[in-house]
Amino acid sequence: MNPDIKRERLNASFDVEKVTYILDGGPEKTKRRREIESLVFSDPDFNEEDPNFLSRSDRYDQAVRKSAQMVLKLREYGIADPEEIYHYKSCVHPGRPSPLDLHLAMFLPTLLNQASPAQMDHFFMPAWNLKIIGTYAQTEIGHGTHLRGLETTATYDPATQEFVLNSPTVSSIKWWPGGLGKTSNYAIVLAQLYTLGNCHGLHAFIVPIRDMTTHEPLPGIVVGDIGPKFGFSEVDNGFLKLENVRIPRENMMMKYSKVEPDGTYVKPPSSKLTYGTMVFVRSMIVGESARALAKSCTIAIRYSAVRHQSEIRPGEPEPQILDYQTQQYKLFPLLAMGYAFTFVGQYMTEIYHHITEHINQGDFSELPELHALSAGLKAFTTWETNSAIEVCRMSCGGHGFSRSSALPDIYVEFTPTCTYEGENTVMMLQTARYLVKSYRQAKAGQQLSGIVSYLNESQNRRVQSQAVAARPPVVDINDLSSLVDSYKQRAAILVEMAAKSIQQELQRRKSQEDAWNNSAIDLVRASDAHCHYVVVKVFNEKLKGIGDTAIHSVLSTLALLYAMHGITKNSGDFLQAGLVSVPQVLQISVRIKELLSQLRPNVVALVDAFDIHDKKLNSVLGRYDGNVYEQMFEWARRSPLNATEVHESFHKYLKPLRSKL
Amino acid sequence: MNPDIKRERLNASFDVEKVTYILDGGPEKTKRRREIESLVFSDPDFNEEDPNFLSRSDRYDQAVRKSAQMVLKLREYGIADPEEIYHYKSCVHPGRPSPLDLHLAMFLPTLLNQASPAQMDHFFMPAWNLKIIGTYAQTEIGHGTHLRGLETTATYDPATQEFVLNSPTVSSIKWWPGGLGKTSNYAIVLAQLYTLGNCHGLHAFIVPIRDMTTHEPLPGIVVGDIGPKFGFSEVDNGFLKLENVRIPRENMMMKYSKVEPDGTYVKPPSSKLTYGTMVFVRSMIVGESARALAKSCTIAIRYSAVRHQSEIRPGEPEPQILDYQTQQYKLFPLLAMGYAFTFVGQYMTEIYHHITEHINQGDFSELPELHALSAGLKAFTTWETNSAIEVCRMSCGGHGFSRSSALPDIYVEFTPTCTYEGENTVMMLQTARYLVKSYRQAKAGQQLSGIVSYLNESQNRRVQSQAVAARPPVVDINDLSSLVDSYKQRAAILVEMAAKSIQQELQRRKSQEDAWNNSAIDLVRASDAHCHYVVVKVFNEKLKGIGDTAIHSVLSTLALLYAMHGITKNSGDFLQAGLVSVPQVLQISVRIKELLSQLRPNVVALVDAFDIHDKKLNSVLGRYDGNVYEQMFEWARRSPLNATEVHESFHKYLKPLRSKL
Repeated sequence: MNPDIKRERLNASFDVEKVTYILDGGPEKTKRRREIESLVFSDPDFNEEDPNFLSRSDRYDQAVRKSAQMVLKLREYGIADPEEIYHYKSCVHPGRPSPLDLHLAMFLPTLLNQASPAQMDHFFMPAWNLKIIGTYAQTEIGHGTHLRGLETTATYDPATQEFVLNSPTVSSIKWWPGGLGKTSNYAIVLAQLYTLGNCHGLHAFIVPIRDMTTHEPLPGIVVGDIGPKFGFSEVDNGFLKLENVRIPRENMMMKYSKVEPDGTYVKPPSSKLTYGTMVFVRSMIVGESARALAKSCTIAIRYSAVRHQSEIRPGEPEPQILDYQTQQYKLFPLLAMGYAFTFVGQYMTEIYHHITEHINQGDFSELPELHALSAGLKAFTTWETNSAIEVCRMSCGGHGFSRSSALPDIYVEFTPTCTYEGENTVMMLQTARYLVKSYRQAKAGQQLSGIVSYLNESQNRRVQSQAVAARPPVVDINDLSSLVDSYKQRAAILVEMAAKSIQQELQRRKSQEDAWNNSAIDLVRASDAHCHYVVVKVFNEKLKGIGDTAIHSVLSTLALLYAMHGITKNSGDFLQAGLVSVPQVLQISVRIKELLSQLRPNVVALVDAFDIHDKKLNSVLGRYDGNVYEQMFEWARRSPLNATEVHESFHKYLKPLRSKL
Repeated sequence: MNPDIKRERLNASFDVEKVTYILDGGPEKTKRRREIESLVFSDPDFNEEDPNFLSRSDRYDQAVRKSAQMVLKLREYGIADPEEIYHYKSCVHPGRPSPLDLHLAMFLPTLLNQASPAQMDHFFMPAWNLKIIGTYAQTEIGHGTHLRGLETTATYDPATQEFVLNSPTVSSIKWWPGGLGKTSNYAIVLAQLYTLGNCHGLHAFIVPIRDMTTHEPLPGIVVGDIGPKFGFSEVDNGFLKLENVRIPRENMMMKYSKVEPDGTYVKPPSSKLTYGTMVFVRSMIVGESARALAKSCTIAIRYSAVRHQSEIRPGEPEPQILDYQTQQYKLFPLLAMGYAFTFVGQYMTEIYHHITEHINQGDFSELPELHALSAGLKAFTTWETNSAIEVCRMSCGGHGFSRSSALPDIYVEFTPTCTYEGENTVMMLQTARYLVKSYRQAKAGQQLSGIVSYLNESQNRRVQSQAVAARPPVVDINDLSSLVDSYKQRAAILVEMAAKSIQQELQRRKSQEDAWNNSAIDLVRASDAHCHYVVVKVFNEKLKGIGDTAIHSVLSTLALLYAMHGITKNSGDFLQAGLVSVPQVLQISVRIKELLSQLRPNVVALVDAFDIHDKKLNSVLGRYDGNVYEQMFEWARRSPLNATEVHESFHKYLKPLRSKL
């Protein structure tokens, strides 16, 4: 092991293993996760070539091979718990989505949730056994967020008792679904339902798209891959153009709404039934943010511990990069954020299960809060993580640009989370809608409960934007709970400001909708402050449950750093609202430097606690043993451009050029 | 043409062509640039396959082919002016660096600047005619920024009158030089010179690395490609391990320092001679930032004009994305920044030429200022642009992830500018060193001139951090010059704070070096504020030279937006220093919304004025005619995964899987 990184580990003040248990949710979870990791990583069937050395087609090929193996082995081992499947999959395809993801995570669940019993009999077992491989085709080339804008049509023909599906325009071509391009032979297609001359809005249809034997596209089906992307090279995101494609009446998803043989449309009993999945997926993405951050911080901090550069004191050996204040200031707040988001991910899972239980008992009252929370936190954590990955990458100097560092891959595989499952700005505005509604309720005298209950308090005081210095701020900057309170008040004030902006627009005789749009900047800012408050609050509450003194101490330091760093980054908000004073902002800057020094001896141990297997991290810079340069050299020599000493282009172009000049 | 984008153009309030002249530096420059573009784009020898459809090896192959063609044609057409060569090259390899870049931009110029007359006779013509293809090998796998840390050795052997070159450790392997992996047969190698038992520091040596006829690596040379990266796929960035490689004494660059046949070392007359190139390259990078921003804004704004999504008012057709306030708030400040950086790029070029003239007359007095300015502005503009490209990309929804949008490529080709030619944090600290030095001089009563002269004024007042509200700020938020003045004062205050932080650390008996390191966060912040001030100042000054009323009006709006947006983003600084009041911050938020609405009818015309040829932009989303979806569909169908209807993996893995489940 590299002596620098060894020394770092000896200097840690706490028991790393115990922190891993906290992050995993208990020692049994850690044990089981490691068992599953070892199942995959010791299995020669999952050996692979570094995808960065392969062509797109070979990357796809390798991913299909491993996915097929995975399906077999999961059944062989009897692994069926979703969390365990998740761990298994994330070792088989470390950090990379795969061609079968939509079949497993969207097609099968949609059948389970929306197919009638007869449809289940017909489709489920073939799909379970991968005779049918399906995807979920909703987004169109010209339409995303706004479902009512989708143009694909399914017109019922009572004469033949069939639906006729069409892509009437270029903008209506289905675009993006994973596994659609090459892998799937079926697709659940979302289309506007027309029957007896009326449109009944978006419905789901089970559409065969490729021949079951030859896998050739069926008549009327134009299907293919949408071409190379920023990441997701293993996935055949696809397009689908439907030209008078006829499917039997029985292929409309019939569990809730129906079309009778004569064309009569039967409405679904409730429209809120698919709400849950969306909330679940967004909650999961919060956890993905934490994991991407954990990986990035592990790589950047371990490499900063073994990398020596320049000099602080002349004549002395080059110091570890980790000793530079600027490097600490780049990385330690992100490490703190990694812990914060991990705890927020745990919190989201708990709250999701808690509320789902209530929903199953028929109590839908908390659903709007959960929806707003998952939308906002999805946007907040993915945006923050998106920037953070790049800060980590650039903190590694030139080597952060090498694919061997894994950081470019972490970035390109993560960044789509800012857009899919609800574009982030749209998500922030959805959360804002809930916040403004809650604010108005509180203003109307209603007593709010849950996470927005702080908006009750804001009715008891006025925003004192004019007299900042007149009112001495009450925050104790060294007390985390007091800082959490400041975040709460900031959120309350920004929600109030956004609501007032709408009010002012309305007074200028703008319509409700224009008033909303003309206040959108303020609304996003309010949502952001709300989410930031939730994150510091959850971190603070998590600390209360930690008994081990050494661990409590180091995690408290992280939490303080996270909270203080957020205040300096948004000091305008806090100053403007009179929540902190100018001298306090200066004190916080000084305190942050102290916290950086305090954390310095523990940071390698803090990333070790994420316990990311070397094969999962897949980074020469982030290796546990710190032997980075040897491995980087070895990796480079395996690169395809080094397959021959002389590249053919020398003989084709460079040598002939000599005689022409 | 798409009717939406046509209407946008009709609504513009100014003459687009005249703005193009301003951006190019005059109508003649625009004319000549277009002539050169047409030379390349009408030349079938430069037809190419979209690199995103090719393997790494084929990308490299295609780039070598085009580079070889380019060298031939430039000589054929007699194009020799550096600016014209630049335009030609940026059409041949639009947005992509190429394998011959280092030969043309580093190897040849280094020969010109550092070779003795005898060496020129020997090496220059073969290099000019590409018999010798060279690169510049400085960075090592374990050493970058800190030149004294480089480990490669060149030991003089008087017995044979040769230098013996060695890579004594893994960390000393040369790493990153462009064109080193496969293309070059020579390298200028930077190595620690040892002669007669003494080390004389870093010197440059001309080292043959491949056989001139077979192109095979020479004995003792281990050379190859460093493997796939985040971008730069056309370039064979390489490694080079030297094992007792002997080169004649005459292959040390001898224009300034020398080693005599007997091993006597002769010192160079001055060590500042290579300073100029560094400053020049960094100044150029400021221009690159502007160009990358111009491309990204062109794509995002044009696409936002033709893309319709969701609804603002229920029942009405889906509005153009450009009508959403959040979209305007994302993109218009970046458009303003694109203009700002273009003018700063022009300013840097002017100042560089101006100061170079003085240097040629023996006056080195302005060199430190130019050095500090180019370092800081390089860091400031590349960091800002780096984030901005990603904001533009994500503002395009899902399609921003498609390689057909060009935005992923713009990002990966641009982001290395944050690291190469001086890592940004290091650059900011270099600028800070100059600022603190100047501050101390001013404090000691010296009258400063040039860009830092504002530090004189700061001696006439104290930072009144305590009594913010007591002192009414004097800024007129609607007057750009007044805003520029606020930026100036902010910079002065932050420089003072950083200098005081160092002072306080020294009082705690820290060494100079530790005091510096413990103040590094403040120092970077001061440099950032200084650069921000320079940018708004240059934008403001540029406006003074614009006579056309309509153009002056729209560019003034852009400049105001840029300045105000910067204040809201850094409102903590401005509030803390008492430069703006809390009500003014609120007024600025309101004014920004007004400026967004004011700019709305002109933004398409403002990106049109960048006049980026469709073939150079290479983006289906950014096309001049706005016909995005048709082209995206066509592009996707050409993608290699669609070469066959059925991918072989179906027969290899998916079909056999059926019988096993």
